[in-house]
Amino acid sequence: MDPSLVPFGKPRAERADAVRNREHLLRTAREMLAELGADKVTMDGLAERAGLGKGTVFRRFGTRAGIFRALLDADERHFQEQVLSGPPPLGPGADPAERLIAYGRARIAFILDHHALARASMERHQSMPPGEPGVSQLHIRALLGQARMEGPGLTALSLQLTAALEGPLLLPASRMWDAENPPDADEIERFLGDGWQTLIERVMR
Amino acid sequence: MDPSLVPFGKPRAERADAVRNREHLLRTAREMLAELGADKVTMDGLAERAGLGKGTVFRRFGTRAGIFRALLDADERHFQEQVLSGPPPLGPGADPAERLIAYGRARIAFILDHHALARASMERHQSMPPGEPGVSQLHIRALLGQARMEGPGLTALSLQLTAALEGPLLLPASRMWDAENPPDADEIERFLGDGWQTLIERVMR
Repeated sequence: MDPSLVPFGKPRAERADAVRNREHLLRTAREMLAELGADKVTMDGLAERAGLGKGTVFRRFGTRAGIFRALLDADERHFQEQVLSGPPPLGPGADPAERLIAYGRARIAFILDHHALARASMERHQSMPPGEPGVSQLHIRALLGQARMEGPGLTALSLQLTAALEGPLLLPASRMWDAENPPDADEIERFLGDGWQTLIERVMR
Repeated sequence: MDPSLVPFGKPRAERADAVRNREHLLRTAREMLAELGADKVTMDGLAERAGLGKGTVFRRFGTRAGIFRALLDADERHFQEQVLSGPPPLGPGADPAERLIAYGRARIAFILDHHALARASMERHQSMPPGEPGVSQLHIRALLGQARMEGPGLTALSLQLTAALEGPLLLPASRMWDAENPPDADEIERFLGDGWQTLIERVMR
């Protein structure tokens, strides 16, 4: 083997290995999450089930919450890809109002589906969920622009529509519903999705 | 003095005394807040300036944050009175869309004016401001009803409009603006007030 290749070849091989480890760990963590629930996924348990050293898991994720954050980040990236280049009406190709309605419904479902994961991804004493609240706002702002809505209040309007979409999902559930008889996730999804559709249809008609 | 009056007369006298103490303490706390800022208002300082015992201040407010909560509650009650029976368009007598716009602008100003007080009224480690987010929602829901808007999405719509109104004011400021060059409270009030007006005009036209 030509020794001049080693400085490039060696790191490349290590990197491929690290990528494989990472994907294996995320896949294993996801299996454990589905089978056991977030409470039962630990650093030690993950290392053992993945057949990797505890040091590898710690270096990769830092903390137990870091495991969940990595899963959430991967799902968030996938969601954003659907918005940027997936099929319409969530992806490009439908008219802006239809896309806004589809975005809101998909975002509501995503946040509801990831509620336990988002909680588990927060470090102790952290009070706001991490992530990019700006992503929804930028998308909503862009679609209002594509609809040729204009005016001085448009940036504020996009901020307020983002709050309208995501705010109710951040409230403690007891403030929204009858605590004795809470609706299930499907009912919440339909309730908020219908409200969002009414709001967008009225704002953009 | 007729001894049969004592069981009624005595508590009544004490109660009047307690009300006076309470009003005196709140007035003194408000003076200290205006002169010194929230950080410098302490239980000891308040007792000294009010010329009352520390025990009275502790029994009245419980904690330092309790002082600010009492001030905030008093202002909140005054705000609600303006909405329920003050002059239009904030109070009754204007049409529902005008009242909603006026309510939003007044609420934005109220929250901005009470930002420091609301922070100071939170106990350590408490992550959500106390108070009644439901008050705005009930008022918004009632005005949508008065405008004869109907439909299955109306309760969700009132929840989402409440989030649109109050949500942006709960975000850490750095997520909303250029952290290097933040706008002052008057600019924020105008920015969000104009956005709210645009939103309501579009929703209710």
